[in-house]
Amino acid sequence: MKKHTRLSVNEYVLGIKGNNHRILSKAITLVESSLPQDQSLSRKVLDQLPTHSKTIRIGITGSPGVGKSTFIDSFTQHLLADNKKVAILSIDPSSPNSGGSILGDKTRMETISVNPNVYIRPSPSGSELGGLNQSSREAMLLCEAAGYDVIIIETVGVGQSETDIRLLCDHFLLLLQPGSGDEIQGMKKGIIELADFLIVNKADGDLKSIAKTSKTQLEAAIGTLIGKKEHGVFICSALEGYGIDNILNKLEIRHTNLVDSKQLEELRAKQKIDWFYKTLKRIIFEKFIQSKSTSIKLAEIKIKLQANDYGVHNALEEILSSDD
Amino acid sequence: MKKHTRLSVNEYVLGIKGNNHRILSKAITLVESSLPQDQSLSRKVLDQLPTHSKTIRIGITGSPGVGKSTFIDSFTQHLLADNKKVAILSIDPSSPNSGGSILGDKTRMETISVNPNVYIRPSPSGSELGGLNQSSREAMLLCEAAGYDVIIIETVGVGQSETDIRLLCDHFLLLLQPGSGDEIQGMKKGIIELADFLIVNKADGDLKSIAKTSKTQLEAAIGTLIGKKEHGVFICSALEGYGIDNILNKLEIRHTNLVDSKQLEELRAKQKIDWFYKTLKRIIFEKFIQSKSTSIKLAEIKIKLQANDYGVHNALEEILSSDD
Repeated sequence: MKKHTRLSVNEYVLGIKGNNHRILSKAITLVESSLPQDQSLSRKVLDQLPTHSKTIRIGITGSPGVGKSTFIDSFTQHLLADNKKVAILSIDPSSPNSGGSILGDKTRMETISVNPNVYIRPSPSGSELGGLNQSSREAMLLCEAAGYDVIIIETVGVGQSETDIRLLCDHFLLLLQPGSGDEIQGMKKGIIELADFLIVNKADGDLKSIAKTSKTQLEAAIGTLIGKKEHGVFICSALEGYGIDNILNKLEIRHTNLVDSKQLEELRAKQKIDWFYKTLKRIIFEKFIQSKSTSIKLAEIKIKLQANDYGVHNALEEILSSDD
Repeated sequence: MKKHTRLSVNEYVLGIKGNNHRILSKAITLVESSLPQDQSLSRKVLDQLPTHSKTIRIGITGSPGVGKSTFIDSFTQHLLADNKKVAILSIDPSSPNSGGSILGDKTRMETISVNPNVYIRPSPSGSELGGLNQSSREAMLLCEAAGYDVIIIETVGVGQSETDIRLLCDHFLLLLQPGSGDEIQGMKKGIIELADFLIVNKADGDLKSIAKTSKTQLEAAIGTLIGKKEHGVFICSALEGYGIDNILNKLEIRHTNLVDSKQLEELRAKQKIDWFYKTLKRIIFEKFIQSKSTSIKLAEIKIKLQANDYGVHNALEEILSSDD
């Protein structure tokens, strides 16, 4: 079967309900397609699929090199041991057009990637650098309809991805390097506020004591700058499996609390509306700038704006009048 | 002269060049107007005004109660002693429609408000909560054309205002309360990264020793979370005038460095382009949602989205198809 062969609505729906990995992948490709006929077909598929609100949605981010793949591998093995089915949606902005190569890099995920209870999907990152795109949410819903108990959405913490991922997940995990500020430099720190769990990974070998110090420092820093204790700081070694149990345990407690207090329901309703507005804004703006005459004019305007005597008000007038 | 009486282009231009406070205020009201004829007139005015790149643009933010007005009063008095002319643009989202009452609250600014070398303008905050609007940049340019050496843009650090203000100023000052995390809670912490100067105010009386401790804690927290030392942490008492000299001195050094290294030029060119795109996005989206049929439909869609079986893809299709 070729990559872009379409199936009937019924074939997609039955395939997804039956957790056929190949059909699930084809359905995700379909929701990612920008072709109008594909979008129409994908909407029909989505409409016929059940919603599984019992799924736990976990967002994981961290700078390159922090050990995300190793962490996800170890975390997933713990979930599998608990009889959970796990879907992993991986968004890597550094290789937007080579989904296959990303999976190739994930040598650490080799064990779990052959397990029938694990589905791994490297997704293209869409048009925005590091951003999740409109289809990320739909890909997640397809996995839920396929019956996965846990969905892990993984992305590198650059650009807008962390605010996008926060709109999709119930629990947001930020992975950090052991070490002081210099080691975690380069990551936007607004993310600290968005994260529910701060996890210092690589607490093994020589780095173990450094990781412990980092944990203490992070707790103090968060206490000073954020002042609430919701943000748990944890250390783990994904490589040695140390600390993963504890994180999973705390995550399950948090999830139960969110469910029992109806906060999960509220959070998801809010996320849905926020995602809708965010996506709508993006589509409206893309529609506007994608017209050929607009895109040429924008390039000219950008150059003119560099000159001191050409103001933003001139630029706005020029681009908006050409819209008429 | 009534509030909304328009002048001729020439009257505005001459009045602003002559630093006539009343005409400057009328010109700012003009750039804030959304009426097409006012926008057309304000563009003509802006086009005929000189650009003064020697102005220092300072953004100041902080939670309510942190002592922003007292700080600005004291800071401005130091600038006046140095023969500087100071314009203060104050944006208060809590009272969007009562510009006058804001100034009324600023009892601390009474001394400076009667000084002819000080211009104070309380601006409405525009349509977005706490946000600066399209005209904030133009109001700033009008003040520069009027010959002010320093422009202070003040806002409460909520909503989007801190990222907007960062796009307008050369130096961004964040005012904080003495105390630990709990006291500075409620402010979005992403702002810490955006700020160039973190200033613990109210270092007087019983709070002086607490302010010193806060400074040390903040320096440690920033070292851990941000890892660069660009962010100077300062303490001051705006009430007693303590520490203001030092802040002003460091700010002048920073400004000279930015000018000499051409970084200021680059920063301002980048800000201009970023402000253009941000404003364009906002206008395009506002145009879209302000049509009556769209706004009614959006209200309906929002309610439907609360239901579990109505997806974002349905909502997007519904709203975008009604656009045709």
